[in-house]
Amino acid sequence: MIDHLIVVGVGLIGGSLALDLKQQGLVKHVTGIGRSRDNLETALQLGIIDSIGDDLAGVAATADLILLSAPVGAMPGLFRQLAPVISANCIVTDVGSTKQDVIAAARAGLGERSAQFVPGHPIAGAETNGAAAARSGLYADKQFILTPLPENSASDIERVESLWRACGARVARMDAILHDQIFAAVSHLPHLLAFAVMDELASRPLVDMYFRYAGAGLRDATRIAGSHPEMWRDITLANRDALLEELDALGEKLKSLRALVAAKDGVGLEHVFSRARQARADWLQGKYNND
Amino acid sequence: MIDHLIVVGVGLIGGSLALDLKQQGLVKHVTGIGRSRDNLETALQLGIIDSIGDDLAGVAATADLILLSAPVGAMPGLFRQLAPVISANCIVTDVGSTKQDVIAAARAGLGERSAQFVPGHPIAGAETNGAAAARSGLYADKQFILTPLPENSASDIERVESLWRACGARVARMDAILHDQIFAAVSHLPHLLAFAVMDELASRPLVDMYFRYAGAGLRDATRIAGSHPEMWRDITLANRDALLEELDALGEKLKSLRALVAAKDGVGLEHVFSRARQARADWLQGKYNND
Repeated sequence: MIDHLIVVGVGLIGGSLALDLKQQGLVKHVTGIGRSRDNLETALQLGIIDSIGDDLAGVAATADLILLSAPVGAMPGLFRQLAPVISANCIVTDVGSTKQDVIAAARAGLGERSAQFVPGHPIAGAETNGAAAARSGLYADKQFILTPLPENSASDIERVESLWRACGARVARMDAILHDQIFAAVSHLPHLLAFAVMDELASRPLVDMYFRYAGAGLRDATRIAGSHPEMWRDITLANRDALLEELDALGEKLKSLRALVAAKDGVGLEHVFSRARQARADWLQGKYNND
Repeated sequence: MIDHLIVVGVGLIGGSLALDLKQQGLVKHVTGIGRSRDNLETALQLGIIDSIGDDLAGVAATADLILLSAPVGAMPGLFRQLAPVISANCIVTDVGSTKQDVIAAARAGLGERSAQFVPGHPIAGAETNGAAAARSGLYADKQFILTPLPENSASDIERVESLWRACGARVARMDAILHDQIFAAVSHLPHLLAFAVMDELASRPLVDMYFRYAGAGLRDATRIAGSHPEMWRDITLANRDALLEELDALGEKLKSLRALVAAKDGVGLEHVFSRARQARADWLQGKYNND
């Protein structure tokens, strides 16, 4: 049981967790903190939070769990605010899409108290934002990845894991470096690509014709270009090195595809398309869910 | 009323049109032609077609409408088979995703009878294939684009238009060159990208980890990589010049995005992401549906 949960950034991710924990009877009081008063009022009306905190440092002392679900660029400032005020048995956790940078920020900001920070990442994003987008059940059968620190206590790690499991998530642990590599490839690059495709079309003289006749293929392929620009700016900068490698790898892939098109190499093109289609089918048929 | 409709390639697109025309009482008899006997048997069982034609040239003489919904690479052969056998009042039409190459094939194959070919393209693709994927109502409120030939008669064009309208489609006319340019940008390039992203991930040592932790973002962004490899090989080759231009433009766009990432230019990145997001929101809110 959590007596006092503080959610910093009451949006889809943090709000949905709060709703689930409440529904499971695992939390007594939820304080919401955020930059937008309107959003916090919405969260209060929807029963996601029980009170609005004006100042993180002012309310943090009584918290036994603090969930940081703000854009990753805001993390350093949050850790600095928390360092002098959190109690010795308070656990701080996060939901950031990148882990090495948040861990670095925690160590810099929390200092000796970094052992109280248990880093995590639920794989349940969406292009919708704000408290109004939160819903219970969001994490059912979704992956939650923990990238624990060597200095974390086993009991703190298990406590965070058990909360996500109670919301239906499947929990995995991995190294923060591997985490950032994997998500550069399967999430961050695809986001950049979707933004790039949309911005390219929007910048051309034929923009009206493009969007008048574009169909469901483009709509779905660019769904993630509806994601929050500030959040994705932060993720892009936070996972910069891995993303640059991914951009270069994709550049090479597109070059080789271009060569096939230029050479009218139908056999080669069909080969690439078939491999890609098969990989996707294998994935969606659960070939890789071996946990 | 169509007495005898021949559908060459009874898949999602051709099969769904046949179903709709039957439901509207606009066709008496539908003959299905295709390479896969199993698929044609399925179409027969589902009531999409009334009979299976073994040989296009053998059944074409009695047709008053022939719908070519085969991969665009098969078009030249089909036109050559049709030229000597179609009646003078038969209309041939197609659903190909590229138009200049199909028109060239029609003129080469049909010769003087090319006036009987009315080229079209419904914007209602999906990554599902075969007769089993066909359904009535697929074209409701979807775009159907006609790229008529100067030699087409006004009445033939109107006849084809009226059939698609009867199935609920919104009909537009445009030049074949413009059509191919637009669809290179909004459909063909996104398909190539989705295939490229999937093939790149599948070819790496970390493939198991990628697909174990990839979420809905990648799934939707690559939905069109589930499309039919042979069909997309043909489309890629048929619209090669426009696609090469699109690949180059995207390459430039990704280069400029890479420069922003490398320079840690958060302001520049957020600017691109915001423009992209806004363009997509405008599009989906109907800003461009000004017909």
